[in-house]
Amino acid sequence: MTISQEFIAAAKDLLGPKGWSQDAEVLREASTPWRGSHQGETPFLALPAATEEVAVLVKLCAAHNVPITPQGGNTGLVDGGVPHGEIALSLRRMNTLRALDAFNNSLTVDAGAPLVAVQSAAEEADRFFPLSLGSEGTATIGGLISTNAGGVAVLRYGMIRDLLLGLEVVLPSGEIWNGLSGLRKNNTGYDLKHLFAGAEGTLGVITAASLKLFPRTRQASAWIACETPDRMIELFAAIRASVGDVVTSFEMIPQRAVEIVMADVPGVRDPLPAPFPWRVLLEVSMADEEQARAALESALMSALEQGLATDAVVAESLQHAKDFWRIRETISLSLRAYGEIVNHDIAVPVSAIPRFFPACAAALRQIAPEAEIVAFGHVGDGNIHYAVAEAAGAAQKQVRARAGDITRAVHRATLEHGGSISAEHGVGRMKRDELMGVRDPAATAAMLAIKRALDPNNIMNPGRVLPTPSR
Amino acid sequence: MTISQEFIAAAKDLLGPKGWSQDAEVLREASTPWRGSHQGETPFLALPAATEEVAVLVKLCAAHNVPITPQGGNTGLVDGGVPHGEIALSLRRMNTLRALDAFNNSLTVDAGAPLVAVQSAAEEADRFFPLSLGSEGTATIGGLISTNAGGVAVLRYGMIRDLLLGLEVVLPSGEIWNGLSGLRKNNTGYDLKHLFAGAEGTLGVITAASLKLFPRTRQASAWIACETPDRMIELFAAIRASVGDVVTSFEMIPQRAVEIVMADVPGVRDPLPAPFPWRVLLEVSMADEEQARAALESALMSALEQGLATDAVVAESLQHAKDFWRIRETISLSLRAYGEIVNHDIAVPVSAIPRFFPACAAALRQIAPEAEIVAFGHVGDGNIHYAVAEAAGAAQKQVRARAGDITRAVHRATLEHGGSISAEHGVGRMKRDELMGVRDPAATAAMLAIKRALDPNNIMNPGRVLPTPSR
Repeated sequence: MTISQEFIAAAKDLLGPKGWSQDAEVLREASTPWRGSHQGETPFLALPAATEEVAVLVKLCAAHNVPITPQGGNTGLVDGGVPHGEIALSLRRMNTLRALDAFNNSLTVDAGAPLVAVQSAAEEADRFFPLSLGSEGTATIGGLISTNAGGVAVLRYGMIRDLLLGLEVVLPSGEIWNGLSGLRKNNTGYDLKHLFAGAEGTLGVITAASLKLFPRTRQASAWIACETPDRMIELFAAIRASVGDVVTSFEMIPQRAVEIVMADVPGVRDPLPAPFPWRVLLEVSMADEEQARAALESALMSALEQGLATDAVVAESLQHAKDFWRIRETISLSLRAYGEIVNHDIAVPVSAIPRFFPACAAALRQIAPEAEIVAFGHVGDGNIHYAVAEAAGAAQKQVRARAGDITRAVHRATLEHGGSISAEHGVGRMKRDELMGVRDPAATAAMLAIKRALDPNNIMNPGRVLPTPSR
Repeated sequence: MTISQEFIAAAKDLLGPKGWSQDAEVLREASTPWRGSHQGETPFLALPAATEEVAVLVKLCAAHNVPITPQGGNTGLVDGGVPHGEIALSLRRMNTLRALDAFNNSLTVDAGAPLVAVQSAAEEADRFFPLSLGSEGTATIGGLISTNAGGVAVLRYGMIRDLLLGLEVVLPSGEIWNGLSGLRKNNTGYDLKHLFAGAEGTLGVITAASLKLFPRTRQASAWIACETPDRMIELFAAIRASVGDVVTSFEMIPQRAVEIVMADVPGVRDPLPAPFPWRVLLEVSMADEEQARAALESALMSALEQGLATDAVVAESLQHAKDFWRIRETISLSLRAYGEIVNHDIAVPVSAIPRFFPACAAALRQIAPEAEIVAFGHVGDGNIHYAVAEAAGAAQKQVRARAGDITRAVHRATLEHGGSISAEHGVGRMKRDELMGVRDPAATAAMLAIKRALDPNNIMNPGRVLPTPSR
């Protein structure tokens, strides 16, 4: 793709001196995602300060047929928000909290605001915004919505699409759709916000969002030892039958992951040091802390009696609970320090977990018999971060050599168990072609028709989610 | 529109003897919604028994350019599912429960199953399907999804779109999209299920759905007297601050509505007979009944002390709670018995309720000074069924004579307060043109582009939701 000097000059003029950059270092940074997993390039970074500026820029791009990659905090993992020749459009200067309505439990915020700012604003108003994930200090609301982010509270509150009341979007034509709303019920046509959520910038640029807030809750947390994935799923059902729909998190952590974190991070201790193969990090939230704790303890007691868990520690303090979460949240980073990793963001029905684990492990033994499987994550949602690992010093170098085969085997087992090979991280360029092979053909055809209808010149983040159509 | 005898003969052949009707009485019934509010007509009723039969029928319609109106339980209120010359496609023979997975908390069901069958199946598996509304014995899952139904538990569980895991849809081309899924996380492209939910059959025929199930809960209910809408909103915030996110229903009922129900239904008594202007029906649900009741009572005690409510009765038994709900659920029918009614399905932000009520009442006094306002409903969602009423014997006949002006005034006040003129009942033909005048033009343009892209020949329920494009 060629981007003319005439376009660049016009864009600079529209955006004003603070509204763009062509500094080599800045462009390099905009083309590098935070984990550095892949490298892009861009001739121009637009830094608009308002929705109207985004709109005139997109109009200009439409007139010059210039492709755009919208960008939030650049924390994506699937090569969705990194430019590969497109101009980059960063929303980072648009980070104002527009309005918070406590009685309506709603908040309207610019797309460039980081998640942590929304969490804090909610808390100051004695409300709660439930989305929570590792990159929350950097990831922006616009990026999180564009990728339909998940995180650790999906079990109770859903993905970010479930937390939306409305959106403001600059469409590929440069028109502004003002779909901001404080309404919980609004059946007035096709629900466009759900189309832009998860579209990864391929249908327009999200410039602001109206979000749901919730009453504040207090947490009770437990670190539970468990023998097998089968028991873990039974434990999950038993806990929910006992405490009801107030389980916020039910996270699976293998013993091996705890060891890898302990080896990497000084001062981390295993809350249950005996050698049990699995841990569960369970969080229950209710309005009253004592009630939450009592409900959690009663459910655990009965689970231990039934043999669904072998041991458990209930957090004695907020700090104690934070220690549990620190282990969980450090696994990804500690795995990278540990050695070679091929990770997979997959989901299967919760009921399929007990069959999926041995089947996938058996398939991997054929490919890389010495590799270690470190499968962890949001098992209550059926969402596993299924990492295949090998220590940095290992002689075999199986994982590096067979990464493609390993991924094919994990994805095949996932699909055979009714699962998804892209659970919460999205598609980007990374999984685009693989999904073309496994997605229902009628669904792909409908997606391509929608893309053509809303972005006929294919200027919005082309080649992400769906292939660029041949002309 | 002309439907050829050649098409009819081919359709009969495809569907087999049980798969269609041209009986005059049957066709009349299919063309009359349950409240008889409007009358349609159809030359042919298709009664397919399987998704494949729907698919071949739609293919035949596409080849002959024959328009189709899909139909569920025919309980809609906006003239969306009644044929006006189109062939009618009833899903009523497709009502099988395909699968229930208790460990995965999911259920897959044919579109023609009535809501009550899904509720019962969930209960038998010791699970809970939260959608609940007045027509639940007749309304079908497919129709409920197509209209994105709401009901009395939206506050806690959301609209039906929030309860979906996946869909199976016959597209306007006759292709089948198999998007059934047991997955809670599945970011693999545009989320098509949210496009079909609420599309009122204009983008395809929903033939089956995968639904979320929840842990069972126990209810505690209260009937609360309240002085003004302002206090009611403060009460709502105070209750949620106290009990947390476990309020299932917060329904507003004016004293006048209770009187109208008592006059209509023998044996109904006012649970709080003193003359307070407003009642709230509050329901809290938790895993443990004692806990729910204790939380409710403690929150109410504090609300009474703060003067947010003037009196309250907590249900002593399930029957007692049912008596509360009976009043709430009988209002619509008793209003029809009472006299002339112009009803409105509107929503405003919860925080706007205290300003909306006097503003809307003042506007109506200009138009029909003697008319009574009976505004009731899901105030916790901001969703009010705003009825303007006049007793059958009244001399003025204001309401009948000025129905159009009354609706314009109510809708104008709604929009001025950031609201929606179609909260949960949908668009159909009834609100289509009015919404064209008030919807954001960029949103309408995007909807029309999507409709054209997925249904280029406009055979799927044409003229509902969006106008038929001029050619």
